[in-house]
Amino acid sequence: MDIMRELAIENEKKIVLLVMDGLGGLPMKTGGKTELETASTPNMDRLAATSECGLQTPLGIGITPGSAPGHFSLFGYNPFNYQIGRGVVAAMGINFPMKPGDVAVRINFATKDNEGNITDRRAGRIPTEECAKLCDLLKDLRIEGVEVFVKPVKDYRAVAVFRGKGLSDRVTDTDPQATGVKPLKARATSENGEKMAEVANEFVKQANEILKNQHPANTVLMRGFAELPHIPSMKDMYKLKPLALAVYPDYKGVSRLVGMDVIEGLTSLEEQAKALEENWKDYNFFFVHHKYTDSKGEDGNFDGKVKEIEKVDAFLPKILQLEPDVILITGDHSTPSFLKSHSGHPVPFMIHAEGIRPDDVTTFGERSCAKGLWGVIEGKMLMRLALSYAGKLKKYGA
Amino acid sequence: MDIMRELAIENEKKIVLLVMDGLGGLPMKTGGKTELETASTPNMDRLAATSECGLQTPLGIGITPGSAPGHFSLFGYNPFNYQIGRGVVAAMGINFPMKPGDVAVRINFATKDNEGNITDRRAGRIPTEECAKLCDLLKDLRIEGVEVFVKPVKDYRAVAVFRGKGLSDRVTDTDPQATGVKPLKARATSENGEKMAEVANEFVKQANEILKNQHPANTVLMRGFAELPHIPSMKDMYKLKPLALAVYPDYKGVSRLVGMDVIEGLTSLEEQAKALEENWKDYNFFFVHHKYTDSKGEDGNFDGKVKEIEKVDAFLPKILQLEPDVILITGDHSTPSFLKSHSGHPVPFMIHAEGIRPDDVTTFGERSCAKGLWGVIEGKMLMRLALSYAGKLKKYGA
Repeated sequence: MDIMRELAIENEKKIVLLVMDGLGGLPMKTGGKTELETASTPNMDRLAATSECGLQTPLGIGITPGSAPGHFSLFGYNPFNYQIGRGVVAAMGINFPMKPGDVAVRINFATKDNEGNITDRRAGRIPTEECAKLCDLLKDLRIEGVEVFVKPVKDYRAVAVFRGKGLSDRVTDTDPQATGVKPLKARATSENGEKMAEVANEFVKQANEILKNQHPANTVLMRGFAELPHIPSMKDMYKLKPLALAVYPDYKGVSRLVGMDVIEGLTSLEEQAKALEENWKDYNFFFVHHKYTDSKGEDGNFDGKVKEIEKVDAFLPKILQLEPDVILITGDHSTPSFLKSHSGHPVPFMIHAEGIRPDDVTTFGERSCAKGLWGVIEGKMLMRLALSYAGKLKKYGA
Repeated sequence: MDIMRELAIENEKKIVLLVMDGLGGLPMKTGGKTELETASTPNMDRLAATSECGLQTPLGIGITPGSAPGHFSLFGYNPFNYQIGRGVVAAMGINFPMKPGDVAVRINFATKDNEGNITDRRAGRIPTEECAKLCDLLKDLRIEGVEVFVKPVKDYRAVAVFRGKGLSDRVTDTDPQATGVKPLKARATSENGEKMAEVANEFVKQANEILKNQHPANTVLMRGFAELPHIPSMKDMYKLKPLALAVYPDYKGVSRLVGMDVIEGLTSLEEQAKALEENWKDYNFFFVHHKYTDSKGEDGNFDGKVKEIEKVDAFLPKILQLEPDVILITGDHSTPSFLKSHSGHPVPFMIHAEGIRPDDVTTFGERSCAKGLWGVIEGKMLMRLALSYAGKLKKYGA
């Protein structure tokens, strides 16, 4: 990281990082093709033919990345140096202005029965509008010495931020990760978590009282207590002016954590393309994120993931017509439909720019990229390549 | 390592690590094939076709591994963090219960002439039974303030363990590594080695007196003074229940150092296969070691090494019929017959499991594996892959 900061220079060259979440895949059966190998991707294939290709491991070989560390790696950061709790990702995702010392936690609105056992951890997946109303009700919560903010995120998901002296994120979740059982008590995992644990349990008690006549969302579950870590911005690190174009809140969250500006209210690739064009003049780094490749993979929906990849392929010309100086296409991790989960498999990437050294890869896929110029490299090296090919890194040494 | 400890979870999935010692090779002449490429290995080739393949460097590029660090790397440890002296490996190999503070050293029974010059560093390779008798004679040794244990290992090799206050392994060998010269005096390499150096020289003096009428073994040479390092066990690190199936003492030794259980008394691949089956239910990690690929390489016996590889290939179905969830086949280093020694060349590997991403490799060899999915990776990454594909590593981060 320090070497990047030392070498980074500012120029007008524009970099686009296009991320298909959970891009890497597997065949569904021996001898088959992966999702990306199956998808018809004429635009990506054409670009691959004039790109440097390879595979990247976001967190190193064999480690399955969560979304936040996967993206930190793509942004060129050592993901193990910046542990980002779920609460902070959620708060950043809705652009809540967290301050140092604040503790944020993800809230699920949930359903409990008369015995207090959880019957639905997502309260029938209530819509965001309903979630917003419930968050409004929780404004009546009062905890001495602590300011509490409760904000809707999406569907049944909300975020609570606690502000006050002596709070810490050394506290366990109340979400039991199962139904038919009672929620857990928040517990301090070290001495300095004791106050926060008390505050959290008081929060749940009052929330239960406030929500007792609501249906189906009559309780809350808490996951991922987290303090705001200190993270150097991409401007500080790389002298970039970065913009994020993401639909999902969490990805806006990780973008804000590294100091990107974020366009709000985008709901589709079409809107992302439009926003990209509109903001093209004002930035020199653009992070374009597509979520649904991951969602389909998590569902085990091979054909669905193939279609999402094809959608992104059809969208690619809208980026290319802007003539970015560097375009980098990859994923933040693999989500093979076969596994229905994130996995540690390396992720294909290609980087196209003037002055790249083309290899023999002419299709964008896992096996083709394995034969590309770079073989398997660490994910956090991609940002170096992008900056380098954009002329944004000066020579090291005389 | 810490990340592994943080992410490891326990499950019943079974991993087999099959090591052909010194597997990697070289052609004997330009344009030729390596030992592995020459060997007929239908079972390994078939497995390679549904495996991820690559080459691994146990200690990084260009470093020639000794046996202990080569294996530490395969067990997922950073071999540079755990320097294991020869004495400790020998003591562990015969299951001597070393305690913290003990110093162990490898002993060769040797022959000296009337002038005290060494004429045979291995005393005519006396058999193990003779070695045991000589070790018994050395029980009469008395050194003030120090307990001394002398135990036979194999042939002319024994091990001495010194127990007492203020001992350290900062002491040089007495073995001159040549004949026609006198043994060296043990010398302290730092202040805290002075007591051990005195003890060692006193040991040699008394041993010479005790052995003076013995033939051909009338003296001892000492190599590799070593203290017991603190090494976290594979159980602590990976939540595994590991078993070692090795014929040679040193490999039982390195296995014990990482907390593996060890089956004693095995003398052949057939017995290793039988023991594997008998213990299949009780463990979830199995280290199967074959020594003679290395021995033949050290002898410069190309054809002999080819035959040893073919023996292991014929043995492979006995492992596969147990249906391990993950099987990893590789070597701890290269021992090219051409060089008659260990070398730093990368070692072929293949890993087979459900959910691997097959590459185009259909034969197990140096050049074919170089074109595999992984290219050249660090040896210690293999354990990560094995754990990952066995579902024994949880996701990192939110």
